[in-house]
Amino acid sequence: MLSEKENNYLELIRTPLEGRDSRAIKLLFKGLHPTDIAAIFNAVSEEDMLFLFRLLTPDVASEVFLEVDEHLRERLIAVISSNELVEVVDEMETDDAADIISELPADDARKVLDSLDDEESIELQKLLSYPEDTAGGKMQTELISVNENATVDEAIEEVRRNASHVENISNVFVVNSSGELVGVAPLDKLILARWTEKIMTVTDTEPIMAVTDLDQEEVAKLFQRYELFTMPVVDHNNKLLGRITVDDVVDVIEEEIFEDFYRMASLNVGEKPLDPPFRAFKMRAPWLLLNLVTAFCAASVVKIFEGTIETLVVLAVLMPIVAGLGGNAATQTITVVIRGLALGDVGLRNARKIIFKETLVGLANGLLIGAVAGLIAYILGSDVMLGVLIFLAMTANLFIAGLGGATVPLILRRLNLDPALSSSIFVTAFTDIGGFFTFLGLAAVFIKAGWL
Amino acid sequence: MLSEKENNYLELIRTPLEGRDSRAIKLLFKGLHPTDIAAIFNAVSEEDMLFLFRLLTPDVASEVFLEVDEHLRERLIAVISSNELVEVVDEMETDDAADIISELPADDARKVLDSLDDEESIELQKLLSYPEDTAGGKMQTELISVNENATVDEAIEEVRRNASHVENISNVFVVNSSGELVGVAPLDKLILARWTEKIMTVTDTEPIMAVTDLDQEEVAKLFQRYELFTMPVVDHNNKLLGRITVDDVVDVIEEEIFEDFYRMASLNVGEKPLDPPFRAFKMRAPWLLLNLVTAFCAASVVKIFEGTIETLVVLAVLMPIVAGLGGNAATQTITVVIRGLALGDVGLRNARKIIFKETLVGLANGLLIGAVAGLIAYILGSDVMLGVLIFLAMTANLFIAGLGGATVPLILRRLNLDPALSSSIFVTAFTDIGGFFTFLGLAAVFIKAGWL
Repeated sequence: MLSEKENNYLELIRTPLEGRDSRAIKLLFKGLHPTDIAAIFNAVSEEDMLFLFRLLTPDVASEVFLEVDEHLRERLIAVISSNELVEVVDEMETDDAADIISELPADDARKVLDSLDDEESIELQKLLSYPEDTAGGKMQTELISVNENATVDEAIEEVRRNASHVENISNVFVVNSSGELVGVAPLDKLILARWTEKIMTVTDTEPIMAVTDLDQEEVAKLFQRYELFTMPVVDHNNKLLGRITVDDVVDVIEEEIFEDFYRMASLNVGEKPLDPPFRAFKMRAPWLLLNLVTAFCAASVVKIFEGTIETLVVLAVLMPIVAGLGGNAATQTITVVIRGLALGDVGLRNARKIIFKETLVGLANGLLIGAVAGLIAYILGSDVMLGVLIFLAMTANLFIAGLGGATVPLILRRLNLDPALSSSIFVTAFTDIGGFFTFLGLAAVFIKAGWL
Repeated sequence: MLSEKENNYLELIRTPLEGRDSRAIKLLFKGLHPTDIAAIFNAVSEEDMLFLFRLLTPDVASEVFLEVDEHLRERLIAVISSNELVEVVDEMETDDAADIISELPADDARKVLDSLDDEESIELQKLLSYPEDTAGGKMQTELISVNENATVDEAIEEVRRNASHVENISNVFVVNSSGELVGVAPLDKLILARWTEKIMTVTDTEPIMAVTDLDQEEVAKLFQRYELFTMPVVDHNNKLLGRITVDDVVDVIEEEIFEDFYRMASLNVGEKPLDPPFRAFKMRAPWLLLNLVTAFCAASVVKIFEGTIETLVVLAVLMPIVAGLGGNAATQTITVVIRGLALGDVGLRNARKIIFKETLVGLANGLLIGAVAGLIAYILGSDVMLGVLIFLAMTANLFIAGLGGATVPLILRRLNLDPALSSSIFVTAFTDIGGFFTFLGLAAVFIKAGWL
């Protein structure tokens, strides 16, 4: 749906762009959201992009600048003058400006900071000092605050005075004379109140807030838990420094879930789809080398039973079936448990219940899948005892997969480690070893007993 | 951090709860957020929970009711009187009320709908008619709207009149005399404007909006793309029906990413961590049966080379190493590509680039991992040519893993299927077959040539 819309815009702009018809383009841009203009930028040549960029008003230019793909932004930074760059950064909210400056080459960053007016430059340098993934790194300094002795009338006057440069105002923050946060007054409550009332009558004096060094994941959890639109950020002395708005948090939530995803797949969380191949190679190789170690461990189990396989080569044909099913059953269990841990449905409080449930599910699936697998093997011409062997080994391995798949992430959580570290590499090692051992071990017993 | 806070609350409430000291509990609850009260409910006995529930004021009770775990809510519904239930539902916003009613047994639902006043009952029944995962299913009907001919003053008066029962007011919606949406006026702009001005002077006449049947995933994408706090919902005739607020969208975004997660792990998206074991068994069994088919396919490749393994049993020991590494390398690639597709960094426009990159990364890792694997095998006492064999097979299989892992999700996207369907089951089948075939096939060639 979105891409259809974008295609329409591209159609519309093609002729005026080819004819370098500035007036027609400016008119068209007036009706477009900066995000959509950025989408056009992503789709045209660099030369066209630069031409279009210079037709934008500074406030739109700054928003488009933030929305284009990262590599296009790098190209823009490289070609526009430092005056143009300063103008663009000047229009941004402080959190965005700090993000952009931190992306700039040191020289350019210096130049931009020097060209901004003193107050803004100092504010930005303060923001740049907070780690990017903390409340301090996520906050913007644009906000409306009033003293606790103000009236509703004065608060609304303050909103009016600042509404042109503060976006998404949904609260007025109330501070005491030392600048410490006293509470939060929602804008709709302000409008509802009589204007001569004191601001404190409509102020929530126990607002949810964050200290600058709170991790962004915790910030996001607070937003979700309390369904917030905006949150004040204070220093360790409770002094109001900035605010975080929910639109910035949405991306954090997405990022954090994908981090779980990445850890489970044995990927570095810093890797991006468009990274250069050599960078991706360097980031993945250590994981695969670790996987090599676990794979040799699993192979050493097979090695123990080399004699057994020599006696009955068909065992080598069937053993990957038992191991492979175990791997996928364990992946199912781990995924369910990790999702539950991330959303808070699962925790140490109900760990025993989850482990019991998953082990039971593993056992039930083992009995079913084992029976079907044994039957298929028999139908395909194997000895009936070989079918029984598959049945028993599969049941045991899927039981192990359920038990291990539920227990390992919970143990990691108990140790305050990331449960998503129970990644594919360890899962497959675990179920390969389990599968090879139960299948080949039982086969050795069967052969010794003369059943095979 | 959160759980620490909860523990503190539990500590605080223990003594008054044991002494059934209603006054002390009510006082304590006054300072707590409903979400935190719900957390206490989740941690105490059912009897205590019911006692506490009855101490809440109706508006807090309705919020706590929404926040407690689903199975506790079911218990509450079972034990409270239908009058109490009606009172609780009556306090809710319409979207929440509709969700709760849809969870109720048919009898209770009927009773609640009959007991509410006519207007609200009709509104709720309309909401219940939209599928849960659409804009219509997510919207609430509480909103502030004014006619396009109104003045700013009249709009603010309308906000005042409704602020007690509409939460999170950040916009006034502007409609014409037929109730069709004309635009959206942000509250902060209203405050900034002169009060005698016409509302249209501060109205955005091209707002981002949703039609009732738009999928919730598309709604969430619009919120993210345009950094919205609230969005109007209209019918196909552009008539304003409701609005969606960003706090409801945050959960949708989380849900949608976890759906990708689940599909990749071959899980039904409807499964929940606390489902009863039999339900989980029923949902997973079909996937594992499908996996059994793919596993037998991979095994049939080994079957072809039974004679080769008979000649050299150590091949059965080493073949799972080549197959296993391929599986994990492919999982890495697929995860990166699916994340890219979900976030929009990867698409059909740059498909060739991604496939080339991932194949190159696979090849590079194949060369490295293959060399190390060959070396380890040699050091552990294998023939040097066996080391060469592992090296070649590993290189080929990780090349295949990169190529396949990048191509399959993109083909699925091209066919308008869900790329996350390229799940673990197919990945492991693909790389098992690739691994067994390259390793055993090359082994057969080596043996025939007299190198092994």
